[in-house]
Amino acid sequence: MAAIYDRVALIGLGLIAGSMSLAMREAGLAREVVGHARSPETRAVAREIGLVDRVAESAAEAVAGADLVVLAVPVGAMGAVAAEIAPHLKPGATVTDVGSVKQAVIEAVAPHIPAGVHFIPGHPLAGTEHSGPRSGFAALFRNRWWLLTPAPDSDPAAVERLSALIRAMGANVEAMDAAHHDLVLAVTSHTPHLIAYTMVGVADHLKRVTESEVIKYSAAGFRDFTRIAASDPTMWRDVFLQNKEAVLDILGRFTEELFVLQRAIRMGDGAHLHDYFTRTRAIRRGIIEAGQDTAAPDFGRSLAAGETPKP
Amino acid sequence: MAAIYDRVALIGLGLIAGSMSLAMREAGLAREVVGHARSPETRAVAREIGLVDRVAESAAEAVAGADLVVLAVPVGAMGAVAAEIAPHLKPGATVTDVGSVKQAVIEAVAPHIPAGVHFIPGHPLAGTEHSGPRSGFAALFRNRWWLLTPAPDSDPAAVERLSALIRAMGANVEAMDAAHHDLVLAVTSHTPHLIAYTMVGVADHLKRVTESEVIKYSAAGFRDFTRIAASDPTMWRDVFLQNKEAVLDILGRFTEELFVLQRAIRMGDGAHLHDYFTRTRAIRRGIIEAGQDTAAPDFGRSLAAGETPKP
Repeated sequence: MAAIYDRVALIGLGLIAGSMSLAMREAGLAREVVGHARSPETRAVAREIGLVDRVAESAAEAVAGADLVVLAVPVGAMGAVAAEIAPHLKPGATVTDVGSVKQAVIEAVAPHIPAGVHFIPGHPLAGTEHSGPRSGFAALFRNRWWLLTPAPDSDPAAVERLSALIRAMGANVEAMDAAHHDLVLAVTSHTPHLIAYTMVGVADHLKRVTESEVIKYSAAGFRDFTRIAASDPTMWRDVFLQNKEAVLDILGRFTEELFVLQRAIRMGDGAHLHDYFTRTRAIRRGIIEAGQDTAAPDFGRSLAAGETPKP
Repeated sequence: MAAIYDRVALIGLGLIAGSMSLAMREAGLAREVVGHARSPETRAVAREIGLVDRVAESAAEAVAGADLVVLAVPVGAMGAVAAEIAPHLKPGATVTDVGSVKQAVIEAVAPHIPAGVHFIPGHPLAGTEHSGPRSGFAALFRNRWWLLTPAPDSDPAAVERLSALIRAMGANVEAMDAAHHDLVLAVTSHTPHLIAYTMVGVADHLKRVTESEVIKYSAAGFRDFTRIAASDPTMWRDVFLQNKEAVLDILGRFTEELFVLQRAIRMGDGAHLHDYFTRTRAIRRGIIEAGQDTAAPDFGRSLAAGETPKP
């Protein structure tokens, strides 16, 4: 495939940026991929494993002459990085980011972007529980959604060029309003993660059940929570602080709903529980029909997460 | 392998009983497997697919002459079934169950068991989100835990014989006290399921985010919750009603802990969040080291549940 950008600069060299570099280089989507990470250790690893074509010693050096700049740092660090690179951006370049929250990133980054540079915020819905420069792989984005939240006055040609790059890495592109993005993600991702973290924390604190018992019998449902709760702590701290309003909104609804079910258990209201559990089944069927998961039963440990065990 | 029991009677022909029948017949662990289900439709399907050697028209007929009787009905139905079969049990036979709650089942079943019959309560930690007579498969129990909660005065030979059958189906046997079982499962299974049901319900009620958006972007974390929340409604209603005390105990701790994290988000206490998320990572590592899950990153949809996506 012909290169879509001449030079791409990746700021941050974790799971997402590393996977982007591998995917772009595998398909020849950029003439050169330059990368920078704040930590000298990360830069050393990136050089050792040849993660990018060139490792730059500063973010400013990395973005010099780049047609596309990707901010792939925790959302709390986006503003500072934008301020640092702003004077060095090439006129006509595109800046995007891969942060899990969009309104806060736009507020932090947009004021620094010079006239003549296109800022197109983005968010790939892809990842694993692993992080760091060794965790990336080229297939990470295949069949995943990559959301873009361009401003109404964004340059359509710049948006289309970035979309072409994303599609060439295997992902599906969809555009939406930044505020709506933050609410949708609060429901489908941020609040589920906070809940999983909490449940794992409860198990950790419980003295009457040993850690080895929790670990041994985790296949009964708990295991799926621990997988979620193993994600990168810095990234998630920033997500919750930066998408505070939407997360607190959804959390409020969650506890309200949980209290209703808790009361049904306490009062022995089996009909309420049965109705509730029947309705949630339909949503699951919708996800399988939409091709976002498989209905196949899960046999062994290698696919162990596919299974929802007996209680 | 030589048969361990001469005749095994399965009361209830859902996922667990069906899988037991297939596993026992595959390995020749019983000379005859007899089955009964209350619903005529289930009995017809069992006959059609040859799920057991013989389908009985009543539970009493099924247990006549059986050396092992397995109660595989929702925990709320165990007491009535025990009362029905009690007069027909063969002296020296063993009765076990596969319910997800143990104290309530023991209270409901034990009073009906005649002298000279061994009652050894059990609980296989295995299953899928599917249910019904067509959902079973012989490999379901391989590498899974199967907990037994025998009374202190149980006959050691009867416990050992049942354990041998379970091991021959591929599972690992462990004995524990019934009250402890109910607490451990409240932590590792019951409360996580209730939370997953709640989160899926919240998404369902939210008018500002469409169901198609929730389904489309479910890979960001929500999908694992829907898998759990698709389990059999009747079974789960009974679990919560029958393990009420332990579930309410763990739920209370959960909401307490969740409120602390919610407050940290509201107050912008990033250090608290970061510490909490770092500790939960260690538990995840323990589960991988214990061989109850794999650390491999997950690439495609067929293994999609293995992944914990970016938020």
